[in-house]
Formats: sequence, structure tokens, C-alpha cells
Amino acid sequence: MQQEQLILKERPNGLPDDETFQYKNVDVPDPGQNEALVKTLYLSVDPYMRGRMSDAPSYSAPFEVGQPLYGATVSQVIRSNNEDLAEGDLVTGNLDFQEYNIVKASDVRKVQTDGLKPSNALSVLGMPALTAYFGMMHIGEPKKGETVVVSGAAGAVGQVAGQLAKRVGARVVGIVGSEKKAKYITETLGYDAAVEYKKGNVSEQLKETCPDGIDVYYENVGGEISEAVWPLLNVFARIPVCGAISSYNLKEGEQDIGIRVQRFLINSRAKMQGLLVADFADSFDEAYDALENAVANGELKFEETIYDGFHKTPDAFLGLFSGENIGKQIVKVAEKE
Amino acid sequence: MQQEQLILKERPNGLPDDETFQYKNVDVPDPGQNEALVKTLYLSVDPYMRGRMSDAPSYSAPFEVGQPLYGATVSQVIRSNNEDLAEGDLVTGNLDFQEYNIVKASDVRKVQTDGLKPSNALSVLGMPALTAYFGMMHIGEPKKGETVVVSGAAGAVGQVAGQLAKRVGARVVGIVGSEKKAKYITETLGYDAAVEYKKGNVSEQLKETCPDGIDVYYENVGGEISEAVWPLLNVFARIPVCGAISSYNLKEGEQDIGIRVQRFLINSRAKMQGLLVADFADSFDEAYDALENAVANGELKFEETIYDGFHKTPDAFLGLFSGENIGKQIVKVAEKE
Repeated sequence: MQQEQLILKERPNGLPDDETFQYKNVDVPDPGQNEALVKTLYLSVDPYMRGRMSDAPSYSAPFEVGQPLYGATVSQVIRSNNEDLAEGDLVTGNLDFQEYNIVKASDVRKVQTDGLKPSNALSVLGMPALTAYFGMMHIGEPKKGETVVVSGAAGAVGQVAGQLAKRVGARVVGIVGSEKKAKYITETLGYDAAVEYKKGNVSEQLKETCPDGIDVYYENVGGEISEAVWPLLNVFARIPVCGAISSYNLKEGEQDIGIRVQRFLINSRAKMQGLLVADFADSFDEAYDALENAVANGELKFEETIYDGFHKTPDAFLGLFSGENIGKQIVKVAEKE
Repeated sequence: MQQEQLILKERPNGLPDDETFQYKNVDVPDPGQNEALVKTLYLSVDPYMRGRMSDAPSYSAPFEVGQPLYGATVSQVIRSNNEDLAEGDLVTGNLDFQEYNIVKASDVRKVQTDGLKPSNALSVLGMPALTAYFGMMHIGEPKKGETVVVSGAAGAVGQVAGQLAKRVGARVVGIVGSEKKAKYITETLGYDAAVEYKKGNVSEQLKETCPDGIDVYYENVGGEISEAVWPLLNVFARIPVCGAISSYNLKEGEQDIGIRVQRFLINSRAKMQGLLVADFADSFDEAYDALENAVANGELKFEETIYDGFHKTPDAFLGLFSGENIGKQIVKVAEKE
């Protein structure tokens, strides 16, 4: 028995095209001991898969050229040698993009079908929804009355992320690419306002729709959209960086510095956080104690570069930027009496 | 009695120069009830003061043209009408840059002089050291065996930040601008290695000195230095963003997108954090419960755009980037049996 599989024919440079994908006929294998044969009902296409088509370093291993693409699927058990997988069961798991797969019980999870369609396991109960949940609730942490902006707001992740913020009482503004999507997020999803980036002047649209600034920015897009959001960030804003789709199909050499930060943060899941010492005023005693002890014990070394005379202040200040002086720059104005 | 004060003559465009600063003669005022007259012994010049010379939106109010600059000082009480401030006391506080100031007890803090020089209150026990402490210990959170990189490593903040990371057992690499500073941080401060950015190829130097990647990057500089650090970030790296000194003296219109992110994070003290759903695997049940309940109650709306047929997979994938479809993109491969 034969089946089709979808293989990566060539790595794309820029937007994938006909040279990227190829369908190929292969045999349907037989399930071995403890295995089951499952039939693919639905498969999920997601932006992160573009990263796997490239061999640039990323959080996910690249697809191999000549080998099948793979990703989230909903499948049905057709034949089973495993007591946990009954014929007819619907399961979801990361499987090869082909008509049939061989699975063990640990490769898949049963799909909840109670009042739901099988495909829902790939959308509102799938990875995009989980991604929305953790990004918004664990990193974004929206609070009642705060303003939350979601880019890619009508997408698989964005459609859930914004609603989760609404549920805690935040005001939610979505950034979308069309009037149809603007209607969807405001009328169906209950977002408070939509910004249509293709209409231009995203900064002005954001200022109008976010008069109290932005407390959470759920980042799916990167690039110019982020640039328009940043100046409106309120103090202690949070930016879960989930995606940077504006950059995924750039050609080699086109990598814009304006989206690199998002890409590196996603690859590393790093946290980047602005810092102002005054925000820690309640903990100054803790720091003074630690520093004073370390200095007293001779464990903390330091240098001061002291300029002698009040009139040296401009020179001392400029010395900060010329890179010539070591340690703290200080001006001595007068002798202690 | 007269004194000199240092005023902001003109706002600088680019690097401050002779037109920026002016000394002016003014009267020394008399202390009123509960006030004291203090004499300035030392004053601190710090990079953040460059921001105050501009009237661009920032976390700190701009200096006024024609008015004195102000910042951290160490002063001595000369005459006092306040029982908490005795003549001869050394105090530190944010005061005008002039030879004498009038203060209330709440404007200043007594300087610890036990085995220390008065100027130390502006360096290793001053705001730069507190900034190093909170940025490194509360945001960077270095752990034993991790690799920590500090830019501006021989500066007022950097010299303390790196040592704090050493004290918890991290491997610390400093980025500096000269051989003299490289020697200072490795020989005096005990950093494990130095990268001299003026020698060029910072990426290569970082790869050599950070063979296990970078877990904490204490950011003082921004721009090309950050660009060299980002590709080496390890999973779950932390980047306390304290400064972006490479950008402070850019002229109007020269604002490089490569440092904007640091500036906005500092101004807003925002947190920007990369996100991958797999990192939350231990909490999937929490998310499934929340999502399933919300869907079951009809409180969570969603759309799926379903492409019919396995051969539509390439189109479905490309549809993610054309911005035409709403909600989750799914391919239907087969009917459920």
C-alpha cells in the first residue's frame, strides 16, 4: 500500500515557492509490537516551521532536505498493537506530514472530542493556544485596567492571547493587516480596538487607541510594528516575545537589525529588562549592607578617577564618553574642613 | 558671599562642548529654619546626565537651560539650624552643582566614613554600585558556573557588577575599550577574561572567551557590542539593561535602530522575554484546563481556516505570511472514519 508524503525539496531563500515542496510516494509501513498505524486527518501549518526550513541556528532542529516535513497533526488509529490506542481513537502529536504514520502511545495524546471538532486540537486547544496562554499569563501578566496590545491579533496565537487579557479586565488593542481582521477581533473576539497596519502611521493609530500607554505588548511580528509600540510603553511594561513573523521570509543579507533582538530572544528565551536604580529604593539597605561588607573585607575592589577642581566638571563629564578613565568619575570641588 | 554654579547654557546636539556648560556667580543663600548650609566636597558625573541635557522624553526630567546642573554630591555641613545635621557632618544627596547648597535633613544621607574616603559614597557605595547590585543580583541572577559578560566593564557600574557575579562563582568576561582597562579588570578585579572592542571582531573575541555561551549579559553599551553578544546567548539568558552609552551622544537623526530597544527598555524598565511553549511543558495541564473551560463555556471564540486536501499544504503554509487568513491555518488531509 502506498501513500504520499510532503518533503522539503530545497531550502528556500526568502519566501518558500514551488522549489521548496515536493510530494513523494512511499510505502505505508506496518505497525510493530506496541505500535499503531494512524491516518492523518488534519495537520497544522505554523510560522515557526519557516525557521525549520532554514539551517540557521534556531531553537528547533532544521528539517532535512529530501525528508518529510513534520508538525502537529490530528490522526485516527486505524490498526493497533497497543492496548492504549484503540482503533478509531483520535490522537494528536508531532508526526511526519504524510497520510499514515506509525506511533507509540507516548508519541501522541488523545484528543478531547466532547462538543469539539477534531481540528480544534490544533487551534484553540493546540500549541498556538498554549503559546498564547503562557506568553500572556506567565510573562505578560496583564492586570485589570491595563492596556494590552497584541500584534498578529487575528492569527492562531493572537486570537487567544487577546481574549485571555480581556478575561482579566485589561483593555485590549489588536494590530492586524486588514479590515476583515479588524472586524473579527473587535466584533467577534471583543477586542476594544483594532490598528490596521496597512493603513499606515501605526504610531498615530496606537496613540489614539492607547491613550494611557501600553502595559503589555504581545509580540508576534517584530520590525516596524515593534518600533511603533516601544515609545508608548508604560513603566514596568512586559513584552512576551512569541514571534517575529515580519522577518521570517527575509532573504540572506536582508536581516534587519530591527528584528534581530526578537529573534535572539526567542531562540534563547532570554529576558531583557530595563533597570533604573530608583525602582529598587525599598531594597537599598540590602544593597548597602552587601556592598559595605564586601568593601570592609577587602573583597570588592574599585577605582575612582578624581578630577581636581569644580571647573573640571565638563572635562570629567566628557571623559565618560571618551573611554579613557577607569572606575567612577568624580570631581573634587573642595577640601574637607 | 558669592559662589560659582555650573549651569546648562545650551542643550547639546551630539557630544557636549563649550556651548553646553557655563559657570556663573550667584549669592550663597542663608539656611532657614530646620535647614543647613553645606559645602560641596565632591560631585559625581554620570552618563545618565547626558539624557537630562536633552529634552527628549526620558525617565528623568530634563535639566533646564540657564539653571544649574544637579546630581550626586558629597558635602559637609558648614552651618546648621537642624538638630539632625551637625556642623562638620559629611552628607550625600542629589544637589545642585554649585559650591554651597541649602538642605533639609531629608534631602541628604549621612556618609559612612569608617575606613572609607568621603568620595567612596559616590562610587563603591553610591548609585553606580547600587545599580550594579540590583541589575546583577535581581535581574541577572548569575549562578555558579555560568558565564557572565559585562560591557563597560571598567566603568563605575561595570567594575562592581562583574565582581558581584564572581562572588557567586560565575565566570566573568568584561568588554572594555583599552589594554589598560583589560589589565585592570583581569588583574585587579579578578575578571576571568577581557574583550577589547577597539581591537575589532568582538564576535570572535567573545566566542573565544565564552566557549560555553553567555548566561547573563549586563548591558551598559548597546549597539554593535550587543549585536555581538546576542548570538551567543544561552537558553534562559538574562540581560539587565542598565545603559546604552554608545548612543548617548548621537546627533538628531542619527538614532540607530540597533540601540533603540535598550533605550526604550531603560525608559520604561520594561521586560522583554522570549517565549517557547515547550519550556512550559510542566504546566500544560494548567493551560489545557483554563482553555477547555473557557471554550466549553463559550467564553473563548476562535476561527480556523481549513484548507481541504493534503496537496493544499504549501498554500496553507504560504497563507500564514500573506496575511489573508483568519485564526489557525489547518489542512484537512482525510475524513474521520
